[in-house]
Amino acid sequence: MKFSSKIEKCTQSPMRKFHPFAVEAEKRGIRIYHLNIGQPDVKTPPQFFEAVKNFSQPVLEYAPSPGLPVLIEAIRGYYDKLDVSLEPGNIYVTTGGSEALAITLQCILDNGDEIIIPEPFYPNYNTMTNTTGGVVHPIPTDVHHGYRYADKDLIEAQINEKTRAIMVTTPGNPTGVVLSRDEMEMIVDIAVKHDLFLICDEAYREYFFEGDRLQTFGEFIDKAPENIIITDTVSKRFSACGARIGCLISKNKEFMAHALKYCQARLSVATLDQIASAALYDVGPEYFAEVRAEYKKRRDTLCRKLREIPGIVFDVPGGAFYLMAALPVDNAEKFQQWLLEEFDDNGETVMFAPGGPMYAAPGKGKNEVRMAYVLECDKIERAIDILKKAIEVYNSKS
Amino acid sequence: MKFSSKIEKCTQSPMRKFHPFAVEAEKRGIRIYHLNIGQPDVKTPPQFFEAVKNFSQPVLEYAPSPGLPVLIEAIRGYYDKLDVSLEPGNIYVTTGGSEALAITLQCILDNGDEIIIPEPFYPNYNTMTNTTGGVVHPIPTDVHHGYRYADKDLIEAQINEKTRAIMVTTPGNPTGVVLSRDEMEMIVDIAVKHDLFLICDEAYREYFFEGDRLQTFGEFIDKAPENIIITDTVSKRFSACGARIGCLISKNKEFMAHALKYCQARLSVATLDQIASAALYDVGPEYFAEVRAEYKKRRDTLCRKLREIPGIVFDVPGGAFYLMAALPVDNAEKFQQWLLEEFDDNGETVMFAPGGPMYAAPGKGKNEVRMAYVLECDKIERAIDILKKAIEVYNSKS
Repeated sequence: MKFSSKIEKCTQSPMRKFHPFAVEAEKRGIRIYHLNIGQPDVKTPPQFFEAVKNFSQPVLEYAPSPGLPVLIEAIRGYYDKLDVSLEPGNIYVTTGGSEALAITLQCILDNGDEIIIPEPFYPNYNTMTNTTGGVVHPIPTDVHHGYRYADKDLIEAQINEKTRAIMVTTPGNPTGVVLSRDEMEMIVDIAVKHDLFLICDEAYREYFFEGDRLQTFGEFIDKAPENIIITDTVSKRFSACGARIGCLISKNKEFMAHALKYCQARLSVATLDQIASAALYDVGPEYFAEVRAEYKKRRDTLCRKLREIPGIVFDVPGGAFYLMAALPVDNAEKFQQWLLEEFDDNGETVMFAPGGPMYAAPGKGKNEVRMAYVLECDKIERAIDILKKAIEVYNSKS
Repeated sequence: MKFSSKIEKCTQSPMRKFHPFAVEAEKRGIRIYHLNIGQPDVKTPPQFFEAVKNFSQPVLEYAPSPGLPVLIEAIRGYYDKLDVSLEPGNIYVTTGGSEALAITLQCILDNGDEIIIPEPFYPNYNTMTNTTGGVVHPIPTDVHHGYRYADKDLIEAQINEKTRAIMVTTPGNPTGVVLSRDEMEMIVDIAVKHDLFLICDEAYREYFFEGDRLQTFGEFIDKAPENIIITDTVSKRFSACGARIGCLISKNKEFMAHALKYCQARLSVATLDQIASAALYDVGPEYFAEVRAEYKKRRDTLCRKLREIPGIVFDVPGGAFYLMAALPVDNAEKFQQWLLEEFDDNGETVMFAPGGPMYAAPGKGKNEVRMAYVLECDKIERAIDILKKAIEVYNSKS
């Protein structure tokens, strides 16, 4: 049977590649410290579950395709506090931030069209782009320069006649790079100048560790109403990944009219999760302050411990809950497999996400890894002690 | 700004086209009998809400991309009772039946590829197909022959070198046509003979009014394991449309490997809705018997009343909760608009879904409408009395 050439171009998730080896290791009684997945361990605010329990309609009906008004209003209120003024029609509720991104790319990219994305990037961007017939055009970055990409000449050098959009994630997954307000404005100006969409994935907006003010491209939405598209989610903000509630924000009326066709074709987003997510927006700033302090502590612990590893290269990430590093090994995937199949330290080993698949260019990032610091500090300390020892053993054996 | 040619080819939902006129009519105090939407009024079984209330994990985590094991096992158990034996890996949980269909078409259709679908069909098939770059190739049917399409020569005549799949909905939306076991087998044989996928949308499986046995293409899945793909949903089965829980079933390993890439790229399906939907599968046969008896009564009421309208053409539908009819008017869309803007009978009017957009061929089905009998019998009687009177007034004015 023949399949679509678009799906043939995609690969299964590189995050999941080592899952079977992890299962085998666990069967042998090995304990694994999981730095490989971005599932936060913070408690979901009780408001979510209370709203679910209070639902009392006898029929669980379809919600309207653009989203339940109660949630759209909650999102508007949240953005209002960030001084971003939105109309209800500027917001569609989506099944996670993932659907917001998929809908956006489907609306924008035609066969052969290009989207500019700083690499390394979230590997699912590849599948989302390839399935439209479009192509990811990477902005190259370097671990030795902290993966920074906010350079006008560097970005403009990637633009050609096929370019339709620039996509940025800030705070960044996998790098943790956070754009400053000036850098954001510079990128907005590029998008306007070249008549490009600017897709802003702000899933990690609350996770920043320098300065005291949330940054959002929403601040520039009235300056570039035709260009800016923001994708957002409750997943990380409220540790509610399993709710699958996100949203798509734009003031480009034509774009929103096209996006509505997708929203209607999939009918609606889960009703209960929308109602419960609306209640999450009542959570106060003290919740975020506490979560942020905890993640900052974890980041600082991770950086302090990594500095004990000779030859490692990394920069202190400004946000999200990821750190990307080049390890002093020949090949991070080979090393990961060895960690699961051959190594243990007192019955314990460690997992991270290999960096290679986060690059569009094959062969790049071979010795790089992404670590998610979603574990408590003592576990992070132990995980990096294991990593340090493992690198020594791994490199001495060859 | 330029958009994808694929989304440019799509239209907004024809079901929603008359929504603004309905809102205006309601503002003038007009009561509308809604035969236009397929939202059942049956109560969602309490098992759903109990399962939701009993959820006690502190973190609402991502579910695995293929679905939560507890729901996959519940679906397996349900199919086992239909004598369809499935392995866990044959089932992926999806965000409604809609996502199962979208994933399937994205995996199968390349630019210019054709999918054969009997028309009239569920209009969202258009958006789902167009956004892949594929094309709907209709199997023509006729209201005078009850929209039946299960004719070997007729189906084979549509197959050409671009054909990749046949898609059938049984019981049918919008026609209510139900395939017999022999007809199903004949279509399976065509798919095998021509090496085509056979996509079976069985969202309305429980809604059939003749015979006493559920029909499913699953019965033939071991005869045509490479061809058959079944999409299914809890939406209509358990009146849980707002849960957005469906599934994708196939024994074609290569197809499932491709589909998994989509599932991973969107991460997971809502966790709580999966747990609650698993509980729905505990609902016993007496629930379905009651629901089926109620819908049969409604169908019979609707048919009895429609027979009072001179010049109307329709056949008694065998299943689902829709009836498609040709009205004795020049243009169903014009008539619908007039019903909302100019007509009322004692302050009441009626809405249906226009049939034209359910055809791939432009100009077909101009005087046809789909009626969803999701109202109680007395309301159906009143709605058709209004329709009868409206047709008389509408035709006498021109």
